[in-house]
Parts: sequence; C-alpha cells; structure tokens
Amino acid sequence: MIKNKSVKKIKKVLVSVYNKSQIIPFIKILNENNIEIISTGGTKKILEENKIRVTSVESITQYPSILGGRVKTLHPKIFGGILNRSEIQADVDELKKHEISTIDMVIVDLYPFLETTKQTKDHDKIIEKIDIGGVSLIRASAKNYKEVLIIPSISSSTEILQKLINQNFFTSLEDRLFYAKKAFEITSQYEIDIAKYFDKYNTDTNKLSKTFTHYISKSQKLRYGENPHQKGRYYGDLEKLFTQLNGKELSYNNLLDLDAAINLMEEFDETSFGILKHNNACGFATCENILSSWNKALAGDPISAFGGVLVTNSHVDIHVAKEINKLFFEILIAPSFCEESLELLKTKKNRIILKKKNINLGEVSFRSVLNGVLSQDKDHITDDENIETVTEINASKKQMEDLKFASKICKHTKSNAIVLVKNKQLIGLGCGQTSRVDALNQAILKAEKFGFILDGSVMASDAFFPFPDCVQIAQTKGVSAVIQPGGSKNDNLSIDYCNKNDMAMVFTGNRHFKH
Amino acid sequence: MIKNKSVKKIKKVLVSVYNKSQIIPFIKILNENNIEIISTGGTKKILEENKIRVTSVESITQYPSILGGRVKTLHPKIFGGILNRSEIQADVDELKKHEISTIDMVIVDLYPFLETTKQTKDHDKIIEKIDIGGVSLIRASAKNYKEVLIIPSISSSTEILQKLINQNFFTSLEDRLFYAKKAFEITSQYEIDIAKYFDKYNTDTNKLSKTFTHYISKSQKLRYGENPHQKGRYYGDLEKLFTQLNGKELSYNNLLDLDAAINLMEEFDETSFGILKHNNACGFATCENILSSWNKALAGDPISAFGGVLVTNSHVDIHVAKEINKLFFEILIAPSFCEESLELLKTKKNRIILKKKNINLGEVSFRSVLNGVLSQDKDHITDDENIETVTEINASKKQMEDLKFASKICKHTKSNAIVLVKNKQLIGLGCGQTSRVDALNQAILKAEKFGFILDGSVMASDAFFPFPDCVQIAQTKGVSAVIQPGGSKNDNLSIDYCNKNDMAMVFTGNRHFKH
Repeated sequence: MIKNKSVKKIKKVLVSVYNKSQIIPFIKILNENNIEIISTGGTKKILEENKIRVTSVESITQYPSILGGRVKTLHPKIFGGILNRSEIQADVDELKKHEISTIDMVIVDLYPFLETTKQTKDHDKIIEKIDIGGVSLIRASAKNYKEVLIIPSISSSTEILQKLINQNFFTSLEDRLFYAKKAFEITSQYEIDIAKYFDKYNTDTNKLSKTFTHYISKSQKLRYGENPHQKGRYYGDLEKLFTQLNGKELSYNNLLDLDAAINLMEEFDETSFGILKHNNACGFATCENILSSWNKALAGDPISAFGGVLVTNSHVDIHVAKEINKLFFEILIAPSFCEESLELLKTKKNRIILKKKNINLGEVSFRSVLNGVLSQDKDHITDDENIETVTEINASKKQMEDLKFASKICKHTKSNAIVLVKNKQLIGLGCGQTSRVDALNQAILKAEKFGFILDGSVMASDAFFPFPDCVQIAQTKGVSAVIQPGGSKNDNLSIDYCNKNDMAMVFTGNRHFKH
Repeated sequence: MIKNKSVKKIKKVLVSVYNKSQIIPFIKILNENNIEIISTGGTKKILEENKIRVTSVESITQYPSILGGRVKTLHPKIFGGILNRSEIQADVDELKKHEISTIDMVIVDLYPFLETTKQTKDHDKIIEKIDIGGVSLIRASAKNYKEVLIIPSISSSTEILQKLINQNFFTSLEDRLFYAKKAFEITSQYEIDIAKYFDKYNTDTNKLSKTFTHYISKSQKLRYGENPHQKGRYYGDLEKLFTQLNGKELSYNNLLDLDAAINLMEEFDETSFGILKHNNACGFATCENILSSWNKALAGDPISAFGGVLVTNSHVDIHVAKEINKLFFEILIAPSFCEESLELLKTKKNRIILKKKNINLGEVSFRSVLNGVLSQDKDHITDDENIETVTEINASKKQMEDLKFASKICKHTKSNAIVLVKNKQLIGLGCGQTSRVDALNQAILKAEKFGFILDGSVMASDAFFPFPDCVQIAQTKGVSAVIQPGGSKNDNLSIDYCNKNDMAMVFTGNRHFKH
C-alpha cells in the first residue's frame, strides 16, 4: 500500500520543546554529525550555551515570535518545509519558488497541560498551557511521515537516539511510520486531557464527567477472553499492581478474579485469607495468625477451593505455605513471602504467585452495555459505623464483629447475596440468585454440607428483606443475628419476627448490589 | 476565575470548511449583517457564486496556498488574528505593528477522515484527509475563547445561527466557552480516529486494537449507580436502541438487566418470552404463540418473576397483555404492541415499557478492572451446528431441540451455570456458583420447588465436567440428555456413565463462561 519505501538521511531538524535541558545531549550528537538544528528563541539560547550551532526559526520565516510566544512556528516556511512531498513535482517546484527548505525531522515536547491542571487552579495559567504550535508541528510531521521523522515527546527521543546512531542517521519508512503512530497517540491523549478539563470546568463537580473519555496506550494480549473462542486484551499496567513471581501468563478470567479478590481483601485489616471462584468468595476467615486463617477459609468450602484464587493480606510463612501447597490452585496473591515458602510454592511451575503492591484502585468503574457504557462511583462504603439496632435485643460484641465481617463479604458477592458467618469464618454463602430466599437456602445447604453448626451464626444480606421469610428460615436454622440495609415497606414484619424470637437485627442503611 | 466577562460583537469571520454548500445560507446572513468574511480559495469561489463578498486568506497573508492546499492558513497574519488578547497591551501593539486584524469568529468543518477510511482502502487518500490547518484553527480559536467564537463543525453552525441573530451578532463569554468545550470534544474524537487508524494500519487484524480509545460525548445522568450511595451515568444513545412508551426513568440496574435480556433474546427466532432478575433468566419459554410462551416462562419461577425484567421477540397482543398485567414487574421490552395492550399496561405509571429497535449491539465488550480495562470479542457463537454426539445413543429430535434451547440460555447465564429444560421451557437454573455441582443442585431444587417433573428433561452446562458427579446426580433425577462443551481430561468418565445409563450426551466444543 505504501508507495515510497525510501530510506532517508536526516539533514535538518526542527526542535520545539518545553523541557529544554533534557534534550541537550541528544541535539549535541545530531549537531556533531553535521545535522542542521532549527529552533525558536528560548531553546536556541540554551542550545547555544551548550555550544550547539542553531538556526533560528525567525531567520527562516523572517517573522518575529509574537503574542508572548503564542505564534512562533505557524508559518508557511516551516509548515511548507514539513508538509512537502518529494515525489510530487509541483511540491518540489513550489519549494524552490518560495525558497523553502525541507525539514527531515521534528522534535516536539508539548506544554505540560495535564501537569499544570494538577499544580494550579488558575484557569488562565492552565489555558496558556494548551500548546497550539507544538501540536500543529507534531500532526503535520506525522501526516507526512513518508518524508519526516517525528519525535513527539522527550521520552521518545531517548528511545530513538541509539537507533539513529547505529543507522548513521538514516531512517526507514517503518521507523517513521512507527513514530507517526506514536505521535497521534500523544495528540489524542493531549486533546482528551483538554476536553476533560473543559468538561469539568464548564459544568459540575461530579466525578463522572459528561463525556466518556478513556485512552490507554499500554496493553497486553491475553491468551483469549472469557472463553477460548473470544479474543481478549488487558489495557493498563499490571506491573504497577503486583510482581509476578511464578506461573503461567495471567488470563482474562484470572484478572477478573483478581479484581474481585483484591477489592474484597481491601476491606480487612486483621490477618485474613480468602478463596474465590468465579469472582465470589467460597472461603474466607480472619484469625490470630495466617495459618489458622487459611485453615478456616479452606474449611468453608474445600470442594470449590479446587482451582481457586487465594488472597491474603499477610506475610506468607513456611507453615502456611506447606498447607497451601497441598491444594491445586490457580493464583496466590500476598503482600510478601518468605524465601522458603516461595521455593516450596514454586515447585509447581504453572501456579501464579503474585506479590501485591500498594496502590489505589481508583474511584470510578465502568462497563460496556447496550452499545454504550455504564459508569459509576465505586462502592466505597464499609458498614463499620452508623449501624443501627432495630430489635429489642442488641447484638453482643462478638455477634457485632461477626455481623460487620459478614457485611464486608456480602458487599463483594454477586447479587442477590446472603452470607452466613460464625467466629469470623465464612460458613455459607448464596450468590448470584434471582431470589433472596434462594440465596439463603443455598447458603444454609452449603454450611450444612461442610459440617457447620448454624446455631449462633449471623446472617448478612446485600439488600433489604421485602418479606419476613428470610429471617424465619434463618431463625429455624439457629441464626442469632442479622445485618441488612433496611428500607423495605415491610421492615416491621422482619423486625417483629426477630423480636418474638430473640434475634438481634441491625440496619446499615446501605444496599450493596454487585453484578 | 474568568477575568474578561465581556460581550463581543462579531465583525470578522474566517471560514475554512470541507463541506462548502451547506454553509452558504449561514454565511449569507452574516454577510448581510455587514460581517466580513475571510476564506481560502475553494470556499471563496463558491461563496462569491452565491453573491457573498469574501476577502481571500491569500490577500491577508500575502502568501499563496501551497503544496496542493496542504499549507493555506498556517500563517502569523491568521493565527495572530485569532490568538491575540485584547486585555494585553503588548499583544495590541504587536497587532498594530504587524498590521494584523483580529478575527472574532472561526468556522471550521474538518476533512472527513473517519468517513474516508470507510469509503476507501487507499492509504494515501486516507492520509491526505488528515486535516492540519483546520485542526490548528479550531484549537487556536478554542484556546482564545475569551476573544473568539469557534464553530467547530457544520452541525454546530445550525445550532448557533438563530442565537446569533437573536443576539444581534453579539456573543457572551458563556457562549464562547460552550463552543470551546465542543471544539476540544471534536478534536479529541478526530485524533482518536486517526490514532486508531494508524494502530490498525501498523499492526494487526485483531478487532481489539492495541490502544484503548473511547470517546462518547452523549450521556445521561442516572438516579444513582448500582446502589443509592453511588453516582451513575450512561454514556451512549438509548434512543437508538428503543423507544420508551411508559414508566419511570431507567436506572443503572435496569440498563444492566436490559443488556442481559436483549442479548439473551437475540438467540431466539421462534416466539419466546423471558423473565430476568439480577441479569439472569428465572423464566424462559418458546411456544407456538406469545401467550403460551409467557405462561410457561412465568411458571419457571413465579416467585423470582416479581419485579423482574420481561423480554419477548414477538408482538404483544391484548391476550398476553391481560396476563402480564397481573404481575408486578420493572420493565417490559418487545418489538411491538397493539394499542389496546399498551393502554392496559400503561395503567401503572411506573412500569417501564420499551419498544425495541433493530440495531447491532457491536463486536467488542469491555469493563474496568484492576486500574485498567479488560476487553474481549463478544461471545457470538451459538451452538446450533457442529454438535457432536459422544454417547452410544443419539438424542432424539425433540431432545436435540431442547438441548440447543438449554445451551442458548446457559450461554447467557452467569458462571458456573447449569440449565434444565423440558419442552422448550426453562424448568430449573443454577447460576453464579463457585462449584458446578452446587449449580446443578440449585437447578434441581428450583425445578422441584415449582412442581416440575424432571423425568425426560435435558441439562446444559456452560463448561465441561471435570468429574462424572454432575451426570450422576442429573441421571438419578431423570435427566435424559446432556449438552456441554467437552474437553476435560475426564470426559470419558461422564461419557461412560451416560452410556451405562441410557443417556445421550453431545459436545459443542465451545465453553460459555460469563461473569
């Protein structure tokens, strides 16, 4: 498709950069190789101080920089030098007629618009950092990549320098196309940042802005999507989140599970262990040490744990590692590991072992739906305070701890969800159900299947009870206390039932649907 | 924050548009109101043919259009006219010194880059449609919105015209800021389109490009997100998908359910009815007419149906409407309704009634995960063909119809999922489970609870059976045929069990995880 596959030698470079000092070593090498450097006032001064010979833009355009530097390079002598096509005779003739020299390479470093919005609230200062000339230079050079090599940022310049030296300052069409692509990535991100600023500035304080603008240039191909016949890709930088110490490549479903696992574990400060399958917990416990936490988490559902995602907020020592090592699992994520435990766990080469870093997981979530996107603030409420007792009897201190523990797990379980807990151990969970009663029945069945005594356990529900059926069923099984949002027209029916049967019930006021 | 709150009269307008004919009536009115029009060659000619007095850009810059029109407006006389600030004395002095006149309004219509990529595969033609001058004009004018009104597209010009006439061609700072915001929305979208083109052109044929680039300017605020304490917003155009005929505003959870409901119903050509709760089907049936389909769908789980999302692919007549009307539901979506049925269903004012339009729901899905985005091709495989019988006995024709029916529902059910079907009626469903056996047990419990006889029913599983336990449990309940992807190391254990117990089993080869 590309007609002109020529290799080109660089002879003349235009430099227009905001961060001037960083570019000096690069320009120096160009200059030492007899490449002519063109630049505007400020840059020229600094380059000359570093003994680099520079032609001024003004001497080419025969026009001064005006309006406080707002108009410097926007001139036909510059843009003609960039946008001409050597294979078109009319272009060649016009260059000659108007005494325009071709420019082979353009180096731009844009005004730091986004950084400025973070440093100041001064609107005028921010607006001044909207780069007009620099963006025009980048775009013109990238459009004409058959003739021009565009270096659209300082970081790109360090990449390309060694290559240029190795190639004796010749560039291939492939090189130029590569940087043209990069150029439009950079201008896209720059425009989105400006549009976002105007959007917020113009309108509201809502974190969900009126336009959906996302641009992520870093990505990795995944083996496949949720299923082998679907292609999949992750956009972002996983290395910021964790270090992979062992195991095969992370899959689409691994990442989905990890998201659920990490967000769930964020709720807990005390030593805890969780086991997830299909984004839901099948085991979870908080205990005085990591070994007991692990044992109690696994006991919650040792069958589902097979092939699961394991997550802890504590240091993995050799004692717990020996126990974990007995299970077939997909992923283990922890903040740290002792050498010995790592060695042991690494004996199975497919096991994914991740060392978690501390990072903020952001404020907003989104997903594609119905040819558009649904976005929302994340559910950042943890029901630790503002819990209101609505029954005649209060929950005991121990019950209250279990209620809060159950509520945290419930919040991270797919709706409809019911969670049964005893002594900070998940003993039964019903999730993803179309009816709340079904969720409860499922939680009870699982608890009984794995030998738990429900007497003295507590129940959490992610949404209110429209009828008293759930508390009735729970009570007959021995559940002693309940935590739920409240807010149904029929709250009183559930409250009355609890009062007649010596159960404690507390309201959080916060529903926790999750789909 | 804004210092210059001045109202400005428009005196001089620069016009640089690709679609010239559409702009003529607008320019004519400006000209009749003694506003000076500046434009480049092609536009000037057409405007003059329409008896509009025009000053040429070339007469202002004293420079011809060169390089086949690639360089026309990129000149200090033009950009100085746009970027100057009336409150800065140095700017005013420089304009005077360099004989630059201020330009109050700029109208741009960019080269149709995206449209061109759709019309041709000719790379050179596409590249030529990267607008350099037009984007520079838009960006410079928007940056200097305190002085300049930017009209960044033809469609914007029709919006603003009446306003300008009403205001006698005075513009407020608010007007100019509004269009500056719009300008950066347009340049953002334009840059993303170019970056996407280069991304694809450069690399692969994968629908999932290497950069995640999404820009949606249309959006609507939702009452809240998944829960009342989370803010929510939908980005996109729901009116393209359906017409709302009745009821309250669609909520975040409504849209999530609708997405699941519409995608599920897309699988079925024959008259069908579905009922969903929390994104999963709780009732579904295909029958000779809509009334029977409804009755059989509702019978699947009349308890969960309460407050559900109802979806059909058939015309809603009065007979079925009378039955539907007895249920408390959130949403009914159908391709058409008779007048009488609409009248009846509208008697409850909160009920959301949607008339579905025919549109393609796209190829790719995505969701935010772990500070990044997971994206994949949609699961577009329907298991209608390439079904392989792996047991000694074949499924009968009727069983095969039920198997395919069950498989379609299973594909749209949250994993792990098991679906039980008899006579094209969903009779039991287990979803969102951490263990496959749990999903099956749940499906059986539900079927039994609502009085279904499992004898002669069929089972679908969204993923293979790692052990023969599921077929064993199903067989003891009377399930006669099974559809599943196959692919486990232990497939033979399930196949052997079926062979010994006169069950038919078929493999699809396609897993259908959905989370």
